Amino acid sequence: MKNPLPHIRNVALVGGTHGNELTGIHLLRRWERNPEEVNRSSFNSRLFMGNPEAFRAGRRYVETDLNRCFRRDLLTRADPATIEARRAAELNEAIGPKDAAKHDLVIDLHTTTSCAGTMLVLLDEDAFHLHLAAYIGLHDPATRVCIIPPQSGDQPYLHSLCPLGLAVEIGPIPQGVLRRDIYAHMHRAVMHALDFVDRWNEGRLPPLQEAVDVFRIRESVPCPVEGDYLGGMVHEAVQDRDYEPLHPGDPLFRTLSGDILPYTGSDTVYPLFINEAAYVEKGIAMFLADRESVRVPPGRRI
Amino acid sequence: MKNPLPHIRNVALVGGTHGNELTGIHLLRRWERNPEEVNRSSFNSRLFMGNPEAFRAGRRYVETDLNRCFRRDLLTRADPATIEARRAAELNEAIGPKDAAKHDLVIDLHTTTSCAGTMLVLLDEDAFHLHLAAYIGLHDPATRVCIIPPQSGDQPYLHSLCPLGLAVEIGPIPQGVLRRDIYAHMHRAVMHALDFVDRWNEGRLPPLQEAVDVFRIRESVPCPVEGDYLGGMVHEAVQDRDYEPLHPGDPLFRTLSGDILPYTGSDTVYPLFINEAAYVEKGIAMFLADRESVRVPPGRRI
Repeated sequence: MKNPLPHIRNVALVGGTHGNELTGIHLLRRWERNPEEVNRSSFNSRLFMGNPEAFRAGRRYVETDLNRCFRRDLLTRADPATIEARRAAELNEAIGPKDAAKHDLVIDLHTTTSCAGTMLVLLDEDAFHLHLAAYIGLHDPATRVCIIPPQSGDQPYLHSLCPLGLAVEIGPIPQGVLRRDIYAHMHRAVMHALDFVDRWNEGRLPPLQEAVDVFRIRESVPCPVEGDYLGGMVHEAVQDRDYEPLHPGDPLFRTLSGDILPYTGSDTVYPLFINEAAYVEKGIAMFLADRESVRVPPGRRI
Repeated sequence: MKNPLPHIRNVALVGGTHGNELTGIHLLRRWERNPEEVNRSSFNSRLFMGNPEAFRAGRRYVETDLNRCFRRDLLTRADPATIEARRAAELNEAIGPKDAAKHDLVIDLHTTTSCAGTMLVLLDEDAFHLHLAAYIGLHDPATRVCIIPPQSGDQPYLHSLCPLGLAVEIGPIPQGVLRRDIYAHMHRAVMHALDFVDRWNEGRLPPLQEAVDVFRIRESVPCPVEGDYLGGMVHEAVQDRDYEPLHPGDPLFRTLSGDILPYTGSDTVYPLFINEAAYVEKGIAMFLADRESVRVPPGRRI
């Protein structure tokens, strides 16, 4: 039987793309000593530390967010200006290069202070990625799928370096902390992803649902601000309710004095990354997504 | 009736001693506009931003932890070497000076990533401080009291600047995040503290319990480490269980591979600040305290 679908021989596993997200970084340490956990008969995995300088500094990044440095126009600059631009060029060389990558699939491990649970961040909606999401959802039904649509045909994220890419976001966990539950949770999600790849390669997938619920990112919502300060905070009816519907007129923020600021959009949306610390720092309170059911295209379902 | 106990005329309220603990910083903003909330007929409050440079940088501190800069030998150095040492000298001038302070009481507002709930951190166990703890506990029975014994007769903390001092720790909340529930929680704790001060001044305290449960800090517990990395994490039976007893032989950590490391001490202790991010960064997994019932000395109980 002819197989028009990609066979995955080389997988790149990346932790520490953000230096203060300790979970992925320490899973790499585990897998350095237990490589059998991340290899299967049909593929090999290699481990990559994303931003070692930021890790040593105990920060998300040193000069600029590494996970926004992987657009083609940024990667091809002759003279990278920041520590992160230089690291992006190195990772592009080691994992990619983009458009001619030596790895078929890259999995990038992230955590968030928001109540993400297990979120799979996809950049594509082809058969492979949707089968992957359906397979992980089969084993962990609380898994959520977030799709970030490309902008002008490109993406700035590390997991856009290879033809296939997955970012795993697990939360809530503070930056700079390693928790056993989140660590075990991320370990499980990666094991499911790698089991899937092996089964995909070998054409032995279990029956999967025919459609996947996805949250498609639409826009960011700025924090209320007053000069250098926040002018309000996420309303308590929204806080920790990632993926739940927000209707026009619903309370969205409270000012410092307690007054309610409602959601002024005209249709129902679904907030993600609510009060993620790294986004609050940039003045973003949350992202809003549309919720859709996306049909899983024919692939290796058997 | 003669009153041997201090009358409080001037209160200093401090937020942002750590620049990424946003809750106190934004309560200050609220009180700037609503000063009537923090003043009472018997005393005045003044508001102080602890570390504005660290706040602008989105970090706990720029060069060194400001809240370890207030020992007498540090404050009297002729040439402060760091941004924080210089800021400590300014705050010593504005709030203190230590041993001759222009404020009778300083209240310093902190948050933590650990499950502290409402923790009152006291440096003294005199009538005033224990009455204060008993009064706040009357209104919020989940309040916990932590005592940090002095070292060589001094303390490095900001709230040691005045004759009377209280640090309020509220958690869990990630660094760099403002949450409505934690913000309301801290606001309530400060209102109770200020109501107490007014009642103390006026000799109209309600009946209070005759003893206060305190957690007296004994020592810190280092994180398991392997070179630059953590070698393990707090065991799931201990994580989020601040104030609960830890017995000899109880599981304390898990290694990255999942092996259990037990608590090897010889008596029962009570962990505090479990997985506080700022301490993990310094290699401290938690503090251990003794739990004691301390009698509230005769004061203004009526």
